[in-house]
Amino acid sequence: MKSGGVSNEVVWWSPASDGTAASVGYIDQRLLPHALERCEASSVEDVVRAIATLAVRGAPCIGIFGAYGVALARMLTPDGEAFAAAARAIRQARPTAVNLAWAVDRTLAAGAGNELAEARAIHDEQRAVDRAIGTFGAELIASGDALLTHCNTGPLATAGYGTALGIAIAAHAAGKRVHVYVDETRPLLQGARLTTFELAQAGVPYTLIVDGAAAATMRAKNVRAVFVGADRIATNGDTANKIGTYGVAIAAAHHGIPFYVAAPRSTIDFSLARGEEIEIEERAAQEVRAFGASPAAPADAAAYNPAFDVTPGRLIAGIVTEYGVARPPYHESIPDLATRPAYALVHR
Amino acid sequence: MKSGGVSNEVVWWSPASDGTAASVGYIDQRLLPHALERCEASSVEDVVRAIATLAVRGAPCIGIFGAYGVALARMLTPDGEAFAAAARAIRQARPTAVNLAWAVDRTLAAGAGNELAEARAIHDEQRAVDRAIGTFGAELIASGDALLTHCNTGPLATAGYGTALGIAIAAHAAGKRVHVYVDETRPLLQGARLTTFELAQAGVPYTLIVDGAAAATMRAKNVRAVFVGADRIATNGDTANKIGTYGVAIAAAHHGIPFYVAAPRSTIDFSLARGEEIEIEERAAQEVRAFGASPAAPADAAAYNPAFDVTPGRLIAGIVTEYGVARPPYHESIPDLATRPAYALVHR
Repeated sequence: MKSGGVSNEVVWWSPASDGTAASVGYIDQRLLPHALERCEASSVEDVVRAIATLAVRGAPCIGIFGAYGVALARMLTPDGEAFAAAARAIRQARPTAVNLAWAVDRTLAAGAGNELAEARAIHDEQRAVDRAIGTFGAELIASGDALLTHCNTGPLATAGYGTALGIAIAAHAAGKRVHVYVDETRPLLQGARLTTFELAQAGVPYTLIVDGAAAATMRAKNVRAVFVGADRIATNGDTANKIGTYGVAIAAAHHGIPFYVAAPRSTIDFSLARGEEIEIEERAAQEVRAFGASPAAPADAAAYNPAFDVTPGRLIAGIVTEYGVARPPYHESIPDLATRPAYALVHR
Repeated sequence: MKSGGVSNEVVWWSPASDGTAASVGYIDQRLLPHALERCEASSVEDVVRAIATLAVRGAPCIGIFGAYGVALARMLTPDGEAFAAAARAIRQARPTAVNLAWAVDRTLAAGAGNELAEARAIHDEQRAVDRAIGTFGAELIASGDALLTHCNTGPLATAGYGTALGIAIAAHAAGKRVHVYVDETRPLLQGARLTTFELAQAGVPYTLIVDGAAAATMRAKNVRAVFVGADRIATNGDTANKIGTYGVAIAAAHHGIPFYVAAPRSTIDFSLARGEEIEIEERAAQEVRAFGASPAAPADAAAYNPAFDVTPGRLIAGIVTEYGVARPPYHESIPDLATRPAYALVHR
């Protein structure tokens, strides 16, 4: 459903008013950069569909949207069992992103009637977390650096300031000259569609490349660091992120370029010892057979379309969180993150 | 111009008849797999345009088409200087593929009036060469192997039986069970459009993947060998091929998977000591910003679009030619190729 409202946010809560029921607003990111369309999810089904179809995407953004979705479910479903089923449906709308399950569980734990306040708190904290990630990450960048990124990790991805891309934007805002090479990120082209849009908005110089050009670009353009986001991180540093990340990490290692992951601590699944335990979502073959509205392959072509891959921790130079940068060996530094003072909370 | 003729060939000579001038026929490969359209180039401009726009593509196929183009130019331009200029224009229609310059030069060297016979000889030899490459290459494959390839190197690419893909097809024809993972090969999607089409025609099982999924597929699907073509090979083994090849080679090395290049000996530029000397064609940014009618990025997005990259010889396990398989160290085995008996000529 299209929204009549106006907002600078990526996702937002639309309170009930004038006989209109409450809903959860979102920008339909599938239409960017060609159209900026604001929509309203007014049912649990709408919420689940917006997540499952990637209209709302980016692990932290999905989490915040899911939390608002739980608040909506509480208003729509007075029955305890139906509410629990609704929350479960939202929690499972996508399997890989740990933030969704984390945000839904946290909202539920706040207790009946407190869901909306908790969702808003999660959203506020995300902004503070992103600021801290940007500050820590920008310290890893020198003025003049060429950077490379994969997929989309800016404000659209987190509903805040962004993680990996937020770092490049923060470095630029701090006066450092940076140039970002942007992988287009097939099949859904989040880099071409969203990252370019966000970098242009932020005034950061960038150049778009096809995913296959990443290795050649590292060599030809003297790339100095790679920054990517994460959908789930195991305690040994193994990181699930958008398909293609693993190949970029291998190419970065081959060229001696540091490869950094940037993500809020909530992306770390402290119950996972290794990346092999991460469930990888497989998406429809049709995403590979077509490019937007243009068919590319024979209509009956078999295709393998994992949404994510797992990059081993040994290929990762550092994991930038709101609590600081974890360095290898991750089986020591990642548990240590849990004990650090909350930078984000101190500075907001 | 569309052709009224019918042919099983990818490029062919159309003799003058019934008041129709001679022309060079070709399948417009930009329209595959959705339409199989046969066209006729009836002027030098048509020939140059068909090459420059990738309607005719694949290094050996371009060479054969260019040779027929020189024969056409000889018929159309009695003036020696105009003919020389026409041959030069064809020779320079694309800068990276050495086969084009080689085939044009060879056709010219045959002397006035002998161009068409020479072009036909080049075409015949290509078929014999491809057969030999398929035979040598298939020996590197065990039944049950999963293979991975990038771009298109089948019959459409060589106007014969194919090089790298011809090997997979030859192994299948010899009764070995193979399964080919096909990189879609952005930006022009030769893998998605052409390689899938050719494998389906040959009855070889395949699965299409996005380029970014190559590394994850190697790990998840137990890929046992990678085969790619080449546009130019230096005498140290450094190989220019479609953008994305270099990243695939790095990922193969990371997984301990042998990475093979398959190409006719004419692809080797014996004047080049190293890949750094290979001129890399940069193509229009618009190819990256869109595919066909589907825009992906903002219309003013800056893009870097090298058509090729150079894979260092040290990442290549073997170079399969019609004279056998060259193995490292290439500075010894590649010059040695020139001294081997011509397998292709012996067996045809």
